[in-house]
Amino acid sequence: MFERTAGRRADALRPVQLLRRYTMHAEGSVLVAFGDTKVLCTASVEERVPPHKRGSGEGWVTAEYGMLPRSTHTRSDREAARGKQSGRTQEIQRLIGRSLRAVFDLSALGERTIHLDCDVLQADGGTRTAAITGAWVAASDAVRWLLDQGRITASPIRDAVAAVSVGIVQGTPMLDLEYVEDAGCDTDMNVVMTGSGGFVEVQGTAEGTPFTRAEMDALLGLADQGIRELVALQRAALAA
Amino acid sequence: MFERTAGRRADALRPVQLLRRYTMHAEGSVLVAFGDTKVLCTASVEERVPPHKRGSGEGWVTAEYGMLPRSTHTRSDREAARGKQSGRTQEIQRLIGRSLRAVFDLSALGERTIHLDCDVLQADGGTRTAAITGAWVAASDAVRWLLDQGRITASPIRDAVAAVSVGIVQGTPMLDLEYVEDAGCDTDMNVVMTGSGGFVEVQGTAEGTPFTRAEMDALLGLADQGIRELVALQRAALAA
Amino acid sequence: MFERTAGRRADALRPVQLLRRYTMHAEGSVLVAFGDTKVLCTASVEERVPPHKRGSGEGWVTAEYGMLPRSTHTRSDREAARGKQSGRTQEIQRLIGRSLRAVFDLSALGERTIHLDCDVLQADGGTRTAAITGAWVAASDAVRWLLDQGRITASPIRDAVAAVSVGIVQGTPMLDLEYVEDAGCDTDMNVVMTGSGGFVEVQGTAEGTPFTRAEMDALLGLADQGIRELVALQRAALAA
Amino acid sequence: MFERTAGRRADALRPVQLLRRYTMHAEGSVLVAFGDTKVLCTASVEERVPPHKRGSGEGWVTAEYGMLPRSTHTRSDREAARGKQSGRTQEIQRLIGRSLRAVFDLSALGERTIHLDCDVLQADGGTRTAAITGAWVAASDAVRWLLDQGRITASPIRDAVAAVSVGIVQGTPMLDLEYVEDAGCDTDMNVVMTGSGGFVEVQGTAEGTPFTRAEMDALLGLADQGIRELVALQRAALAA
Amino acid sequence: MFERTAGRRADALRPVQLLRRYTMHAEGSVLVAFGDTKVLCTASVEERVPPHKRGSGEGWVTAEYGMLPRSTHTRSDREAARGKQSGRTQEIQRLIGRSLRAVFDLSALGERTIHLDCDVLQADGGTRTAAITGAWVAASDAVRWLLDQGRITASPIRDAVAAVSVGIVQGTPMLDLEYVEDAGCDTDMNVVMTGSGGFVEVQGTAEGTPFTRAEMDALLGLADQGIRELVALQRAALAA
Amino acid sequence: MFERTAGRRADALRPVQLLRRYTMHAEGSVLVAFGDTKVLCTASVEERVPPHKRGSGEGWVTAEYGMLPRSTHTRSDREAARGKQSGRTQEIQRLIGRSLRAVFDLSALGERTIHLDCDVLQADGGTRTAAITGAWVAASDAVRWLLDQGRITASPIRDAVAAVSVGIVQGTPMLDLEYVEDAGCDTDMNVVMTGSGGFVEVQGTAEGTPFTRAEMDALLGLADQGIRELVALQRAALAA
Repeated sequence: MFERTAGRRADALRPVQLLRRYTMHAEGSVLVAFGDTKVLCTASVEERVPPHKRGSGEGWVTAEYGMLPRSTHTRSDREAARGKQSGRTQEIQRLIGRSLRAVFDLSALGERTIHLDCDVLQADGGTRTAAITGAWVAASDAVRWLLDQGRITASPIRDAVAAVSVGIVQGTPMLDLEYVEDAGCDTDMNVVMTGSGGFVEVQGTAEGTPFTRAEMDALLGLADQGIRELVALQRAALAA
Repeated sequence: MFERTAGRRADALRPVQLLRRYTMHAEGSVLVAFGDTKVLCTASVEERVPPHKRGSGEGWVTAEYGMLPRSTHTRSDREAARGKQSGRTQEIQRLIGRSLRAVFDLSALGERTIHLDCDVLQADGGTRTAAITGAWVAASDAVRWLLDQGRITASPIRDAVAAVSVGIVQGTPMLDLEYVEDAGCDTDMNVVMTGSGGFVEVQGTAEGTPFTRAEMDALLGLADQGIRELVALQRAALAA
Repeated sequence: MFERTAGRRADALRPVQLLRRYTMHAEGSVLVAFGDTKVLCTASVEERVPPHKRGSGEGWVTAEYGMLPRSTHTRSDREAARGKQSGRTQEIQRLIGRSLRAVFDLSALGERTIHLDCDVLQADGGTRTAAITGAWVAASDAVRWLLDQGRITASPIRDAVAAVSVGIVQGTPMLDLEYVEDAGCDTDMNVVMTGSGGFVEVQGTAEGTPFTRAEMDALLGLADQGIRELVALQRAALAA
Repeated sequence: MFERTAGRRADALRPVQLLRRYTMHAEGSVLVAFGDTKVLCTASVEERVPPHKRGSGEGWVTAEYGMLPRSTHTRSDREAARGKQSGRTQEIQRLIGRSLRAVFDLSALGERTIHLDCDVLQADGGTRTAAITGAWVAASDAVRWLLDQGRITASPIRDAVAAVSVGIVQGTPMLDLEYVEDAGCDTDMNVVMTGSGGFVEVQGTAEGTPFTRAEMDALLGLADQGIRELVALQRAALAA
Repeated sequence: MFERTAGRRADALRPVQLLRRYTMHAEGSVLVAFGDTKVLCTASVEERVPPHKRGSGEGWVTAEYGMLPRSTHTRSDREAARGKQSGRTQEIQRLIGRSLRAVFDLSALGERTIHLDCDVLQADGGTRTAAITGAWVAASDAVRWLLDQGRITASPIRDAVAAVSVGIVQGTPMLDLEYVEDAGCDTDMNVVMTGSGGFVEVQGTAEGTPFTRAEMDALLGLADQGIRELVALQRAALAA
Repeated sequence: MFERTAGRRADALRPVQLLRRYTMHAEGSVLVAFGDTKVLCTASVEERVPPHKRGSGEGWVTAEYGMLPRSTHTRSDREAARGKQSGRTQEIQRLIGRSLRAVFDLSALGERTIHLDCDVLQADGGTRTAAITGAWVAASDAVRWLLDQGRITASPIRDAVAAVSVGIVQGTPMLDLEYVEDAGCDTDMNVVMTGSGGFVEVQGTAEGTPFTRAEMDALLGLADQGIRELVALQRAALAA
């Protein structure tokens, strides 16, 4: 059977860190680490909304994602230099944005935007799930800042949201894949859930052999457990 | 309870058409209709592979997706005129490509590429699932052409692949959503499966309220049944 | 002497089809076929005008042109993926726009825009002339829709407009060239004329040997006759 | 009747200048003036050909066109800053390239490229026709340079080529329109002809009222006479 | 010791020309020549300002820079065709803009923009310093035009500004480098100064060996003397 | 007189940190802090060179620069999303590349490239000077890695290189400006020097009043002293 790094169990998360106030300018700034994967998540408040929300009385929450060129094993081209974002980047930032909006009451936010920037400093698998998990903490800090400023009187955040990857590695369902596991697995699934246990996103892909319904059930069970742990860590970080 | 167009049952597909040899130049050319959604899927054989496959002895299968500007209710900008493809377009064409590769033996294809172009002539919900379903038929015709030409001696296609959307509309799980259903539903899921019933992709998104495990199970059941019907229709079209 | 496909005479058009209401969302939607050349022309009404017409009381008519990647013998790159439209594409869409505006009374249209999208599903020579001919029928249907809606009270269309290609193939002047004729001809000319026989555009190019005045006269005569036939077909289609 | 600037007759060219060796680096460098329209035409020899000509034994002749931002009455945006060339620019540079290639024997040129750069320093109507006329002189100087260098032993230029605009201004056919005439005319035609009187390109456009066959005949007659004069001036410049 | 072209002394400028009213449409139009380097500088007045100045009561002065493709020894690609401006181009146009703004009272200009377009017709070293020197003369003419029009009542230009390059060529500090000197020098410095002798910009770069403080002092001395001469020439040109 | 933050003297650097091995994939990875300015500098080795160096036997050293969107007081647009790098970004990355190449023996490096990526995590003035200073340490670690791997046998680094900003704030020359000082200063100068005290780059700009020769001398003196301190800190970091 596949041996995980440092004797990690199949159903164990990697060590998770959620460091708040990591940089000084943003209204929320969190360095999230899932093992060696490190993502800087900042939340920036802007007092205006994109065109499709103007005059609606509602706000907007949106995300952008990037990887530093040498966050990966071999250097990848800088997207700003190539002049466009890859399909993968766009897919991930759309996912982060949808996941965060799922727990936001946009009316209660008022006509303003929270921009979540998730920049990968070091990648070792699971960058998008770490990003969602960290972005929610950064967004929570930005909401506290809005409350402290008196710009809003009640939090527009209705629930926590966190994400984790699961996959079948050499036949075994495993939680929170690191890079070498992800690269070699048959099935890879990213799951986004709320603090109260509802599904927000499920994205499963068979890299090689298609997966069965039984395998899917096993993966969803692992994800559910992992996300409960992540939400507890998010709440602990905010209480610190 | 929500009334579907033309008295359609919650677990019924829309009328499906798979018209082969729809245009004359492509090695495979299929007009697929899921009700009023109409997508032209062509398969083009090119005797070379992208850089990451050169010298590998393996081929490649890739997809591009586009919508004609007035395939939708209101005209949308032409992506060629705007100078870039939207995130949605890139996400969909990556999904189509992965889905088709899941049933291809790239070694058996040899060092050549099959390009699948999926262009939406008329949109009424489910364009990506119709595209995958039609593209597999177009790819099958291109493989027959390769066999007829003697360029390959055995088919590299290991199984059928088809896709369908499912969702929860006003509390009821429904199969194959049309536009008005999709726009108003709480949860939307696209499912891609093989002819032998394995999952290739599952992409579920809660638009409003997060969905429960029980709802997910109901949706996966509906999708499984719908895809069995679609695979039967694919095989019938190829036998015609 | 050069033998045309299916025994076609030098002064004969290919079989022409003008199928109205081909797709359901556009205010005008026409599939035009000149033999194996098939172009989907849609007319979309938008209740605003580009900046140079704002406040003028006049409307605007504009066109965009595209070819599906496998509308041609060998697959060509998708312009949206390359990130820009070719010079040829821009030249053609400017020609279609000018041709249609030549028969429109922009004051009578009011401050709104008619967008004509001409997308080639299958190419066999003469795509731009088929596009102009079909676009006029689609524009006529959009004008009828405006009249039916009561947004205008009189038609802003002053005359019909249609187009055809002519050329000298192996020394013989011929009407409505198909691809193999076009590729091998010495002189190629696209002619756009109104229903009342006035010239809107004449674009002649010597591919090899320069052409003489006598040759030009012969080509203009052929074009005049062909456009009379096309205008009769346009009127018949609209009367159906 | 319309009064032309400085009492010019309807069938008269503006004063034409063809200054050779205008800049020092290019193999051919000509400042061409048609009245106040001034275009710098350079011909650059490059010892390689574009992909579609590699290994063919043939050369290539290609053109690029640009306008300095303040060559016009009001400043226009710099195309390099906007990040793309307009449709008009592309249409003109394609026309210049085709016109020059019409008189070149590409086999006799050998596998090398002549790049013609036509940059408008000052615009007052007829920039494309001045550009073609000047580019031919610049190309002739580049060919002489190739002969002097011993890279070719016979000239690949088979004939002269020149261009002029004609149009109907307030009912009168006129030769070589300046800006105010062009802006107000009903019909505008650009004609490209060889030294021996063959047509290379005819591009006529009705700006307002469609034009008749009789008007077209009058315009072609004027153009023929004007181009004879231009070819004489080209030959005189090269003899100087 | 290094011999300069035409026996030029180490501390001598090349022959300088400042031809005003070089083209007819711009409010200021100057052809500046530093020896064989020739740059056309036009100043265009626009009655609006960029967003960051709107409502401020202040104007703006900005510059764009370009090289004609064959202004150089070997032809370089046209930036409009490549779709973007190089880093070098952007660096130079930012330098020109800052240099001119240094002597402008933007309040006295009023809410309007002066666009300076500097296009290199022929390059032989020092194009950016020639551009700054010529642009100031063009801007002065545009200001006179504004005064003549009665749009402003006092000149917003507080001082002259000019620029020159200096460098160490084979050990000798030299003024106003031409191309062969620039290509071979160890240290290259561009200096921008006002008429009253203040520094606006100093940009020194060691191409090979780092330079010493003593060398820097020698170069600044040469530049100071050269710019005094250039300012005298600017004033003489404006007085003509 | 202007009071600096935390009672800093006019000739004092901010606290400097040079943390090596900050991320794990790059051959060199240094977090450099100049007070609150924090830049992640990575050095990546690639076993090939750009086209202009192929076959030359020489290597290449190049730099890219970026700012995370919320590294600044107010969020700025992501350059990858806008599709191009600003002129400022290009200017800075060209400066970093030139500065590093000034101390590299490209022949001794062999035909390989060192990419320096400088990404600003938090900005408070002086990001480009911090980037150069940190990039040299990262490059030194990459060179050690090449030596350890046995790919080169002697270091191609001939000297240290570091950079600092100086400026005149309310009349007083000051070293290492932080953001509020930079924003309000009259003259801003970036100086790049080698460990042995030679100048590599001097870039001085008068933001308001032009500066005098005496002011320039004072600034160069301050920079010289600051860079000596920085080089000592670089050497200490590498010795750790």
